[in-house]
Amino acid sequence: MALLIEKDTICALSTANGVGAIAVIRVSGDEALALTSKIFSKDLTKVDSHTVHFGTIRDDENKVIDEVLVTVLKEGKSFTGENTTEIACHGSTYIQQQILNLLFKAGCRMAKPGEFTMRAYFNGRMDLSQAEAIADLIASDSKKGHEIAMNQMRGGYSDKIAHLRQRLMDFASLIELELDFSEEDVEFASRTELNDLVIELKEKLTLLTESFAYGNAIKHGISTVIAGRPNAGKSTLLNALLNEERAIVSSIAGTTRDTIEEILTIDGVLYNFIDTAGIREATDEIEKIGVERAISEVSKSNILLYVFDVNELSKEEVQNDLSRLEREGLSIILLANKTEDMDASEFAAYSEEYPVIAISAKNHEGLDALKAELAKSVEELATESDTIVINARHYEAFSNALADMNQVEQALEMQISGDLLAMDIRSAIRHLSSITGEISTDDLLGNIFANFCIGK
Amino acid sequence: MALLIEKDTICALSTANGVGAIAVIRVSGDEALALTSKIFSKDLTKVDSHTVHFGTIRDDENKVIDEVLVTVLKEGKSFTGENTTEIACHGSTYIQQQILNLLFKAGCRMAKPGEFTMRAYFNGRMDLSQAEAIADLIASDSKKGHEIAMNQMRGGYSDKIAHLRQRLMDFASLIELELDFSEEDVEFASRTELNDLVIELKEKLTLLTESFAYGNAIKHGISTVIAGRPNAGKSTLLNALLNEERAIVSSIAGTTRDTIEEILTIDGVLYNFIDTAGIREATDEIEKIGVERAISEVSKSNILLYVFDVNELSKEEVQNDLSRLEREGLSIILLANKTEDMDASEFAAYSEEYPVIAISAKNHEGLDALKAELAKSVEELATESDTIVINARHYEAFSNALADMNQVEQALEMQISGDLLAMDIRSAIRHLSSITGEISTDDLLGNIFANFCIGK
Repeated sequence: MALLIEKDTICALSTANGVGAIAVIRVSGDEALALTSKIFSKDLTKVDSHTVHFGTIRDDENKVIDEVLVTVLKEGKSFTGENTTEIACHGSTYIQQQILNLLFKAGCRMAKPGEFTMRAYFNGRMDLSQAEAIADLIASDSKKGHEIAMNQMRGGYSDKIAHLRQRLMDFASLIELELDFSEEDVEFASRTELNDLVIELKEKLTLLTESFAYGNAIKHGISTVIAGRPNAGKSTLLNALLNEERAIVSSIAGTTRDTIEEILTIDGVLYNFIDTAGIREATDEIEKIGVERAISEVSKSNILLYVFDVNELSKEEVQNDLSRLEREGLSIILLANKTEDMDASEFAAYSEEYPVIAISAKNHEGLDALKAELAKSVEELATESDTIVINARHYEAFSNALADMNQVEQALEMQISGDLLAMDIRSAIRHLSSITGEISTDDLLGNIFANFCIGK
Repeated sequence: MALLIEKDTICALSTANGVGAIAVIRVSGDEALALTSKIFSKDLTKVDSHTVHFGTIRDDENKVIDEVLVTVLKEGKSFTGENTTEIACHGSTYIQQQILNLLFKAGCRMAKPGEFTMRAYFNGRMDLSQAEAIADLIASDSKKGHEIAMNQMRGGYSDKIAHLRQRLMDFASLIELELDFSEEDVEFASRTELNDLVIELKEKLTLLTESFAYGNAIKHGISTVIAGRPNAGKSTLLNALLNEERAIVSSIAGTTRDTIEEILTIDGVLYNFIDTAGIREATDEIEKIGVERAISEVSKSNILLYVFDVNELSKEEVQNDLSRLEREGLSIILLANKTEDMDASEFAAYSEEYPVIAISAKNHEGLDALKAELAKSVEELATESDTIVINARHYEAFSNALADMNQVEQALEMQISGDLLAMDIRSAIRHLSSITGEISTDDLLGNIFANFCIGK
């Protein structure tokens, strides 16, 4: 860890790249106030924290580079925990570059990606999971994604982990105490109580690990496959949804030539719609491959929208298609398409098991009902856990801690000796600690912060 | 003017669009502190100016949208002159949108382009020419362009105009006083002194109007045509310059099919390089058109780089080409190309009048000498005026004031009566006043500020 703690003063553009009315350059480190004062028209080393100062930035030739507002945040009271200045300048890229160059000459160093946040972590302003949440927060572009990242950044997560960890540590200490008195064959740690704790922790860890599927889907988009026979109206439906929702994020090439993916936000939730090739009885080899691909897409997704032409397909044919697509954990919504001028009620009979919605993709009819049903499916995906795991690293740590708990449970059952028991408990504690960063390595931290943008 | 003064509270994103570590939303108006307090965790109406406050922004459902830093700048001490808050939030587009939405609900209105700066002007924080300089400052991406805009923003310009204007007003008042005593045939305003003033003003206004050609070139790029016979190495030279200079701004399609334009910055100056079709004795009609186009490009440009192959062309042929391209005010630099392994001194003889530089466009040789010569040419373009006009509106106003001065001069010569003299002087004053905005109209202001970005 030592390698990464650098106490020099860093600077970077913290606002988005490009031209804006204003831009903000952030400076952080022991010498932030002194170094900023070198290029600014006022001595900032004597001013109070949380004050703002108007003045000029001048270059070596005493030419005015800009008129700026400098905010001073002092050690212990800033985001990083270090002395910090934030220089709000006019937003031309030329001025941004010039001010950064002057700061370099004054003795600042260009910040590495995420270095401000890493310093905040090192200085105890937040734990590692909170620091990671900042990157998720900045990247989040849907209401749900924002909500989960915000909850994590504000420490909801950390409290939960600290609590689990503390209880394990209490037990580990008692068991280790037993080992010191091993000759006397005492039992400080009640095995019954430990067993109760293990059962409770297993339950909580299971909820947390299970929440990752949902958290990950929220972060990257709920995977929603549109399947059905050729000409059922799959593409027309996708286009209708894209037209309705103005918040289109992007249109990306499918993973196979046969699928088209579109990402869009509906009612605050990000969806990743995958339009597959038609599913039908394959008549030749090539067609068979296309159908298999469609089925394989379905197997990886959260929601299946099965579209069928009510004028073409019987209930039996629909049931037959569905039997090839159903699987555990997949929400299925049937979309009875081409129902122009028909009575919606007559299509409910197509399935007893799944909701059936009458739509006309062509005329944009029934889309609101579809969106409501999608929202319901997402709600079903959500786990009971009020804390949602969205970070793959955390998921792995929770999974490892869960495996350790299984070991402890077995050990208790087999009445295995205290030292082995303690080892497994310590391992679980270590995994939980790695999430909040009580335990970390240079490599780990390097990986985490390398994914940040510069200036954060 | 009255129509445009609106006292409601406005808000906008002031940093560049897109995702950044942080973003800044600016709020300005009488109610800025109260309306920001509505969505912020702290009452800002009671705090001091130039202070910064950490807290949370919450939505209608009391959900935390973000943890932010809010800067408070009070009436009379802010950029706009109004109560202002600047909300520094995490830079996700989702958060930016949510905070703006909450501000709208609280009673703020979305700012129009340039509205913050327009309010600064209305509230007497700066004159119109200074306000206009802000847009130029933000757009400037070269050292020279930045320098001129900064000088104008800081009021160097305004002082000069105020001085000229004051002297004219003194005279106008004296002449108008004469009119009141017209029956007595007195002369309060010395005609000799007035004549001296007119001569001085004409000189100054001429310098200012002449500086526009340079100022405009600095702002939009020094127009530099590369001409020469086919296969002289014109395109190779342009590519060599583009490769050498990393600060390529853009590559734009030529105005005719025969020209290619490239904008790049060399040593703090923006150049607009135009690669023309080859110039030679036209053998057919189509070729003739191409050649004429090349010559026409030259006639509109500031600098001509005439490239020739030393192995192909004699001094006479070069002189012949140049005789078709020379014109008043055009800087010409001869580039003796394809001089690989040759002695540079032998090419100087190609011209007595213009500098000759030996280059090898292919091997990137001689480019530094070329850049030095370009810088020299730009220096020659610069006028004696220490104030450079870069704004077309100002150029027009100065030109009109100059025309008025010519009228006054004639009137003095012809000993025309005081009332006509006063009219011309008043007209000149009006034109000068329009630059700094002592006189303005809604239409004019609307036009000026519509070119600003939102948030400024």
